[in-house]
Amino acid sequence: MMMTTAEMTAALRDADGVLLLTHRRPDGDTLCSAAALCSALRRMGKAAALYPNPEITETYRAMTAPYLSPDGFAAACAVSVDVAGEEMLPDGYEGGVDLCIDHHPSNAGFAPRSLVVPTKASCGEIVLELIEALCPPLTAEEANLLYAAVSTDTGCFRYGNTTAETLRAAAHLVESGAENYSLNRELFQSFSFARLRLEGMIYASLHSCRGHRVNVAVVTLQMMADAGATEDDCEDLAALPGRIRGSVVNITIRELAEGRSKASVRTSEAVDAAALCALFGGGGHKMAAGCTVDVPPAELERRMLAALDEVWKP
Amino acid sequence: MMMTTAEMTAALRDADGVLLLTHRRPDGDTLCSAAALCSALRRMGKAAALYPNPEITETYRAMTAPYLSPDGFAAACAVSVDVAGEEMLPDGYEGGVDLCIDHHPSNAGFAPRSLVVPTKASCGEIVLELIEALCPPLTAEEANLLYAAVSTDTGCFRYGNTTAETLRAAAHLVESGAENYSLNRELFQSFSFARLRLEGMIYASLHSCRGHRVNVAVVTLQMMADAGATEDDCEDLAALPGRIRGSVVNITIRELAEGRSKASVRTSEAVDAAALCALFGGGGHKMAAGCTVDVPPAELERRMLAALDEVWKP
Repeated sequence: MMMTTAEMTAALRDADGVLLLTHRRPDGDTLCSAAALCSALRRMGKAAALYPNPEITETYRAMTAPYLSPDGFAAACAVSVDVAGEEMLPDGYEGGVDLCIDHHPSNAGFAPRSLVVPTKASCGEIVLELIEALCPPLTAEEANLLYAAVSTDTGCFRYGNTTAETLRAAAHLVESGAENYSLNRELFQSFSFARLRLEGMIYASLHSCRGHRVNVAVVTLQMMADAGATEDDCEDLAALPGRIRGSVVNITIRELAEGRSKASVRTSEAVDAAALCALFGGGGHKMAAGCTVDVPPAELERRMLAALDEVWKP
Repeated sequence: MMMTTAEMTAALRDADGVLLLTHRRPDGDTLCSAAALCSALRRMGKAAALYPNPEITETYRAMTAPYLSPDGFAAACAVSVDVAGEEMLPDGYEGGVDLCIDHHPSNAGFAPRSLVVPTKASCGEIVLELIEALCPPLTAEEANLLYAAVSTDTGCFRYGNTTAETLRAAAHLVESGAENYSLNRELFQSFSFARLRLEGMIYASLHSCRGHRVNVAVVTLQMMADAGATEDDCEDLAALPGRIRGSVVNITIRELAEGRSKASVRTSEAVDAAALCALFGGGGHKMAAGCTVDVPPAELERRMLAALDEVWKP
């Protein structure tokens, strides 16, 4: 059953022993929105904790540590935050979901009761409204957590999902004590030395064709080794070729193992990324898709550029 | 004489034949704030135009083209926008300044009448208030121009000058029709191929010491040539070493000519950049300073790291 914000507020007011669930490969929005809601529920005198998502990364572990569930936490009500479907529940979680708070348009209501607001850029904005209804004012810590949630899901207000409402929510969070500058530095301007070395190698070897409208980045295992990079250093590499002015088709090919490569394709409106990747057994969305093929990176690049010549006539 | 916003509004309402002046090495804030104000004044039936700043770059020339002063424009009132002092007036301008609209704290009131609001992150926010007082509502074009002004002066809301008011102004601009996503792409995610090649070379050759707390980037004339880069591709290179997590002292050394190098130093609170650069005949602010020395880049790096060992004890 789909709920209104007021109905979700009432349900949370009635709940106790709340276990907050985040999604697989957790990002700032799921973790920090859940932690902010956890903080507010505790301020209301309730027992509340975050399910310890096994895939949490260092930055977010530090930010959400006070809220992680202690052993033996007695959950009476499980609330998922930013989880689009049951298959996105974290590894190891075997309980059900009582309440669902989400903004993914694809959320079809897998939980018995759900508040889904697809017009919101982030779950952080939904949780902000819930906390304002449950127990205002926000604490500075909750403001920090929600700022992290909103800003990471919008690429610090750069992505197309950023609306006037998003910016107004961010203004309210800054007024409520969010340290936006230090969070921005930590979340958007802070890279490992290995990551920058790897970016350097990628930029140095970018392949560009059709007047810089098609750009290909290749990341080999050798480059990873030379840069001293690990999987943690590879976030959002698929965005790099799209930094070139006028780029329409951006292909990032990673060597997964000898003779096995994965392509991530990002396009602007003119080209259907999913259709291109479908030719190689992959799929995705119109402007972001991928495929994995048993060939070395150079060969996958050759095949994809040849296929692109068919799909997108010059 | 310093004015209030209401007094500046009245002065602009009384003015006609308005020539809008922007500052040397013009940025998005000075140009787009001036163009938005020009548009509003024209909507009020006034003659208004931008002084054709000789240093305007391609992106902003395109955005402000309809407002550039035609030959023979009869100026009766010169209004400077985002100009901190007389020495910042553009090359070739020989007239005076009647009204000054600015947000630089250093603006001591060089014009006869000035509205200076140093709490604003951008002049765009001041002009927004003026237009809302003069002739609301904003047009979509004015919203686009002011969004460009506000976002460029705040690094798309990442810099420390971004306040709740800034974000609320941005929300209002998006509601008024600013196409924030395409502007963000154009202004913050759009680089020449040469720029990315150059960044690649810089990252590949970064020198890091003291546990990545001191990071040095070197840009030689050979690297510029190899990347096919021009001066246009070198904006904000000084920010690159600061992307390394935990970096405290960031030094970017550019070879200006054979045997002549310029260092740009960016620091966090712990180290005085101006004091370090003063040892080499340069200067600046505590967290951003520079110096130019008649030695090759490698020698300047050696000397600056040696000096840093004296200034900042491990």
